Amino acid sequence: MSVVETFDSEIDLEAEMEALGRRARESARVLAKASPSQKDRALYAAATSIRAHVSDILSANDKDMAFGESRDLKGSFLDRLLLTEERIEAMASGIEEIAKLTDPVGSVAAEWDRPNGLQISRVRTPLGVIGVIYESRPNVTADAGALCLKSGNAAVLRGGSESFHSSRAILNCLQEGLERAGLPEHAVQLLPTRDRTAVGIMLTMSNDIDIIVPRGGKGLIERVQKESKIPVIAHLDGNCHVFIDRGADKDMARDITFNAKMRRVGICGAAETLLVHQSVAASHLPAILDQLISAGCEIRGDAATQALDDRVIAAADADWDTEYLDKILAVRVVEDATAAVDHIAEHGSSHTEAIVTENADEATFFLNNVDSAILLHNASTQYADGGEFGMGAEIGISTNRLHARGPVGVEQLTTYKYVVRGNGQCRP
Amino acid sequence: MSVVETFDSEIDLEAEMEALGRRARESARVLAKASPSQKDRALYAAATSIRAHVSDILSANDKDMAFGESRDLKGSFLDRLLLTEERIEAMASGIEEIAKLTDPVGSVAAEWDRPNGLQISRVRTPLGVIGVIYESRPNVTADAGALCLKSGNAAVLRGGSESFHSSRAILNCLQEGLERAGLPEHAVQLLPTRDRTAVGIMLTMSNDIDIIVPRGGKGLIERVQKESKIPVIAHLDGNCHVFIDRGADKDMARDITFNAKMRRVGICGAAETLLVHQSVAASHLPAILDQLISAGCEIRGDAATQALDDRVIAAADADWDTEYLDKILAVRVVEDATAAVDHIAEHGSSHTEAIVTENADEATFFLNNVDSAILLHNASTQYADGGEFGMGAEIGISTNRLHARGPVGVEQLTTYKYVVRGNGQCRP
Repeated sequence: MSVVETFDSEIDLEAEMEALGRRARESARVLAKASPSQKDRALYAAATSIRAHVSDILSANDKDMAFGESRDLKGSFLDRLLLTEERIEAMASGIEEIAKLTDPVGSVAAEWDRPNGLQISRVRTPLGVIGVIYESRPNVTADAGALCLKSGNAAVLRGGSESFHSSRAILNCLQEGLERAGLPEHAVQLLPTRDRTAVGIMLTMSNDIDIIVPRGGKGLIERVQKESKIPVIAHLDGNCHVFIDRGADKDMARDITFNAKMRRVGICGAAETLLVHQSVAASHLPAILDQLISAGCEIRGDAATQALDDRVIAAADADWDTEYLDKILAVRVVEDATAAVDHIAEHGSSHTEAIVTENADEATFFLNNVDSAILLHNASTQYADGGEFGMGAEIGISTNRLHARGPVGVEQLTTYKYVVRGNGQCRP
Repeated sequence: MSVVETFDSEIDLEAEMEALGRRARESARVLAKASPSQKDRALYAAATSIRAHVSDILSANDKDMAFGESRDLKGSFLDRLLLTEERIEAMASGIEEIAKLTDPVGSVAAEWDRPNGLQISRVRTPLGVIGVIYESRPNVTADAGALCLKSGNAAVLRGGSESFHSSRAILNCLQEGLERAGLPEHAVQLLPTRDRTAVGIMLTMSNDIDIIVPRGGKGLIERVQKESKIPVIAHLDGNCHVFIDRGADKDMARDITFNAKMRRVGICGAAETLLVHQSVAASHLPAILDQLISAGCEIRGDAATQALDDRVIAAADADWDTEYLDKILAVRVVEDATAAVDHIAEHGSSHTEAIVTENADEATFFLNNVDSAILLHNASTQYADGGEFGMGAEIGISTNRLHARGPVGVEQLTTYKYVVRGNGQCRP
């Protein structure tokens, strides 16, 4: 029996976690049967509660910020931790957006009849209990909680230890929403302590948690994948490529490359390597390089790229494998589309890649032969996002091959059951 | 470096397994791009090769049978191991049936347009490399290999050590088929040795194997789930229920119960517990009990059931949780449909359950409130089978909630990628 200190008292952590798991499972059973309108009432009430408790949330956040500052956390970290009235309003309206999504539960994914008269349908049902482990941003508490609720799942959340008070204040609002709709408040729970031991216990609770979604840096995700006894929907690297094929329009190639790299450099869909077909390198590449360099982007290129602009730094082997998440782009001139596809197979992370070409055959070759979660033809890799896909909010982008690949929205948080209707059939 | 003895030579097992994994991954890349007709040519050629090598397969099987007999394996085990001309012909025609299935690869599971003009489609692609671990039946080598090939996946197979020679003879035919179609022969491989160490290594090869499918008894599956570093599609218990609700037709209730229990008692879809609404127990249950007992089925009932037939044995608590796979049925009279649903939630294994009723509302309540992979209304639980669902052959029935639930056919052996078509879109 391990006893750890929380803020108010000492608790028996293992017993607490077991009780938390049991409450999650029980709540999940109720939530799975809740009607769409009841779940939506809970979400709208949660948004109302957040708006009514802005000052409580802000003062909880003050405590977290003071804690963060006392630990000398760096500025970007503190910025992610910080809540403002605007950010709290964005949380509330984000929950309302999730309420407006189509409820996936009960929808029929496929149906067919058998020659013996059996009518078979595949009906979406909630996954059950979803564990979400995230880092500093307290708004994930609202996002992830609302997505799980919308999809009929109970949620067990573990926010960054630095955002403990903020997350708890937000949780209170979600639970108030659940109560007002007559749903079990324990449908969304936070771990009872910021002690890291709790995460270790959480990752072993395979009877009471059906899936773990880690959201955060590579270190967190690798640790979760290594330790978890529960299946993990993980999002690893986004080493994304843009390939400018022979048939590319010059202006479009420049615009898409610039947007794919520079719109936001810190997101997983940002381009990290540009591949250019040799026959258009001389014509298309100089303007691309110039625009990027002028905007402060460092270019690490192969010899052919260096020959086109003397501001290009020589790329090392490691550059092809690096997710910079920064104003840096690796550039390589390739012999043909096959070489581009091979480069992506060898160095890519199977996340998102784009081809620019006006030639339909070239596009088809690339789309068929690259195996990544998202492939775009004549569009920026920065569209790799559940919202841009029309799926509403996402709990993450999966680089798994199993269950969910790409953006994970409410539909991907469901499983299915087969409903078979007969009139007395017995199997011969 | 572990050196183990195989039949012909000593090998460096770790190096062999690494090479096998690499060959599987390389073959998977080729297979993923193979056309439907090329894969089908390989399958038909494999069937032809099996028919041409009946005598080779039979003599390989003789060696396995001699080995099995020398180890005093029991009769039912030897029967599963035994191949005959008829069984070999069934294998060949089974492969041809798989060839006739619709190829899932490249099919569009969903498509939609975005207001900005992006056209999004979700396209099925192979999972990659599938590891299948099975027990004595050598025909699984043909089945599983053919299902993986049809769905564009490479297969790494590990048959029961007793069927080593038979499986290898069948593998040769599959590989001959692949070669004749111009596909890499290593798209289907068997582990190089029957040494159990090889399975342990296989379960750690998460870079080269994408998913593990164990087929066999509970011991095998639990061991695989415990040891595997690779996601597992597992099939655990089938503790299936038939519920006779108030509105059940008497004859239909009897026929479905008898079929669900007795058609084949050893399959996962066989009923293990019968629940009867109290208001029809006196009218419907006696004929059901009589037919079952007359056919040699032991009935373990609650007090209300015992009161209806003095041949009924008293059920113990453990009976409600037992998958007999035998001519034994647990029977309980319940107060109402809610009690039936609660009983199934508490004791069931979420595999397959059936309700018998003529009342649509009763059926809807049951179908909505029971959370099992397969729910049937007025049909026997013995229909829990990929073939009966029209999915063609199955590699197993999944009791997972993630990825695939219920029968796992060729479609469930795929993942998907998003293909997004634009005309120059850059994200604002």
